[in-house]
Amino acid sequence: MHTLDVALGARSYPIHIGAGLLGQAGLLQPHIRGKQVLIVSNTTVAPLYLDRLRAALGDSVVAECILPDGEAYKDLAHLDLIFTALLKHRFNRDCTLIALGGGVVGDMTGFAAAAYQRGVDFIQIPTTLLAQVDSSVGGKTGVNHALGKNMIGAFKQPNVVIIDTDVLGTLPDRELRAGIAEVIKYGLIRDLPFLEWLEASMTALVARDPVALADAIRRSCENKAAVVAADELEQNDVRALLNLGHTFGHAIETSMGYGVWLHGEAVATGMLMAADLSMRLGWLSASDVQRTRGILLQAGLPVLPPQMSADEYLDHMSVDKKVKDGQLRLVLLKHLGEAVVSTAPAVLLRETLQAGAALGVPR
Amino acid sequence: MHTLDVALGARSYPIHIGAGLLGQAGLLQPHIRGKQVLIVSNTTVAPLYLDRLRAALGDSVVAECILPDGEAYKDLAHLDLIFTALLKHRFNRDCTLIALGGGVVGDMTGFAAAAYQRGVDFIQIPTTLLAQVDSSVGGKTGVNHALGKNMIGAFKQPNVVIIDTDVLGTLPDRELRAGIAEVIKYGLIRDLPFLEWLEASMTALVARDPVALADAIRRSCENKAAVVAADELEQNDVRALLNLGHTFGHAIETSMGYGVWLHGEAVATGMLMAADLSMRLGWLSASDVQRTRGILLQAGLPVLPPQMSADEYLDHMSVDKKVKDGQLRLVLLKHLGEAVVSTAPAVLLRETLQAGAALGVPR
Repeated sequence: MHTLDVALGARSYPIHIGAGLLGQAGLLQPHIRGKQVLIVSNTTVAPLYLDRLRAALGDSVVAECILPDGEAYKDLAHLDLIFTALLKHRFNRDCTLIALGGGVVGDMTGFAAAAYQRGVDFIQIPTTLLAQVDSSVGGKTGVNHALGKNMIGAFKQPNVVIIDTDVLGTLPDRELRAGIAEVIKYGLIRDLPFLEWLEASMTALVARDPVALADAIRRSCENKAAVVAADELEQNDVRALLNLGHTFGHAIETSMGYGVWLHGEAVATGMLMAADLSMRLGWLSASDVQRTRGILLQAGLPVLPPQMSADEYLDHMSVDKKVKDGQLRLVLLKHLGEAVVSTAPAVLLRETLQAGAALGVPR
Repeated sequence: MHTLDVALGARSYPIHIGAGLLGQAGLLQPHIRGKQVLIVSNTTVAPLYLDRLRAALGDSVVAECILPDGEAYKDLAHLDLIFTALLKHRFNRDCTLIALGGGVVGDMTGFAAAAYQRGVDFIQIPTTLLAQVDSSVGGKTGVNHALGKNMIGAFKQPNVVIIDTDVLGTLPDRELRAGIAEVIKYGLIRDLPFLEWLEASMTALVARDPVALADAIRRSCENKAAVVAADELEQNDVRALLNLGHTFGHAIETSMGYGVWLHGEAVATGMLMAADLSMRLGWLSASDVQRTRGILLQAGLPVLPPQMSADEYLDHMSVDKKVKDGQLRLVLLKHLGEAVVSTAPAVLLRETLQAGAALGVPR
């Protein structure tokens, strides 16, 4: 087992990474204050892992809330199901919520924990690669609104993140690849040696080599923890760098309907669009963009944005949380391995939005 | 104009109290960072005061969200209307929400501000006496759930509270009296001289004497600000003392259906129940309880709890936020002017719940 710390003063917490951690009572119980525990999971994950987790909870009073599986259900109406479960069981301020699932379950459980009685404890047990390397760490929680993704939420740090690499064995290939998109992101924004390692190791990762996967998760969490420690509340643009590809990606997700593209798929295509725009700004070379496209293709990720007019893209992008004084600010790449938050000339942005199948393709 | 400060370090803010403050641009504008302002109000208050507030907002981009009036609409579904308004107008993280209304509008607007894009600014302009003396100060925000009052929310401090005493001129008598219940509360829990002043001034308050009302508001806000500064997040029971009568009162509100009893009315009856239980514990004398009943009657507040079995009361009370390790903890009175948080023997609690019309009546 490998343990990292997210250094946030009084809100610091450990991330445990290893095989078979899900059933280890000793990792969970130090982080459960009261006697009441609500496990929040979904209809896909619960049949696989809920009993094992329950067994590790000893003599706690354990209740469950099983949500339907998918980004389409990440809304206020389904969040309310968590509150209903808590209130039906008369759970009080000393209770602990455990998120057992992917990013949707983690985001919703964390927000429910932030808001229930104005704040109770919660624990993240992410079961998708995407949640393990990204969404379970750092305390961004929330739900979607029909008019914008992740527009309703809170910063709420978990008490502990328990990453059991064994659970990836049941993860569908498409979800694994979507998670790899966020792994590649860390290389692109701040860790060129990691990007190079990923280029060399992608075949092993896609083939689910356990050593390669554990290394990729550890390295991703190290990057995420360092960024979060530097800028917990996204106040100085450091944390915003984690959103490489996300403004484009959110536009894709919102326009296609939540869940049609997986989040990681939309981010992958969005990162290629960000690389393309960075090239038009004179920061990346054409071969850098081709290299970005190359590693995404190696991971089996989509590199062709959905057909949509530039105006439609811009309409969706205008509600992005990085908009400031009416100016759209994007995460772009100064170099491979170095991201910045920047505005971009509208004419160049439109070129990127209209590039379509030409993105990152050698001429 | 009188100005108080709520001393909360980086989250400190002023409370301005006076006549005709609503339209004063100079009080508002220093607290508005960006250009986008959403005024949240309700169908009763908006026709009376919205235009005056709008005029004070100068060249801001001002949008509105007008909610139906009443506690029955303080839920997630109506909260979503605020998010929809924000997103429709493409409001970003620099926007400011202004709550123009009573406690329901203030609580919902504050929670919306806490959750929109994980946190934007907000300003409280309370228009009921209850909101002016209690709910607009201190940062407790949230909505109700069908299974419990104020069970979903956040601590979110406003940038400024602007209390215009003129707006009480349009407040219905019943609402004025409900607000006086929370004023009496400060006397009972921590300010015996204020309680004595209230006994002497109640006729003037009920007759809306402007000087008496302004004094009562100022003194209430001073008490509230001191408590909040000592225990912002209700971590050490100091702040919990503000909930005198509220555990009983919430049971009344939840069982009767939100809005049938006004919050202040339920709190009034609940405070008398708390006084009665304090007497059974040997802390208050029978004449202290009679005196409590007397001042509530002077204010025209209800002192007869709805007929409900003790088990029904206990069922509603068991979800109270002060429950800890399965133990119901109540705010009770050691003396008039001194409250404590305490458990109580079940047999005595049942006696209070069954006392009905006998509460505080001389035998």
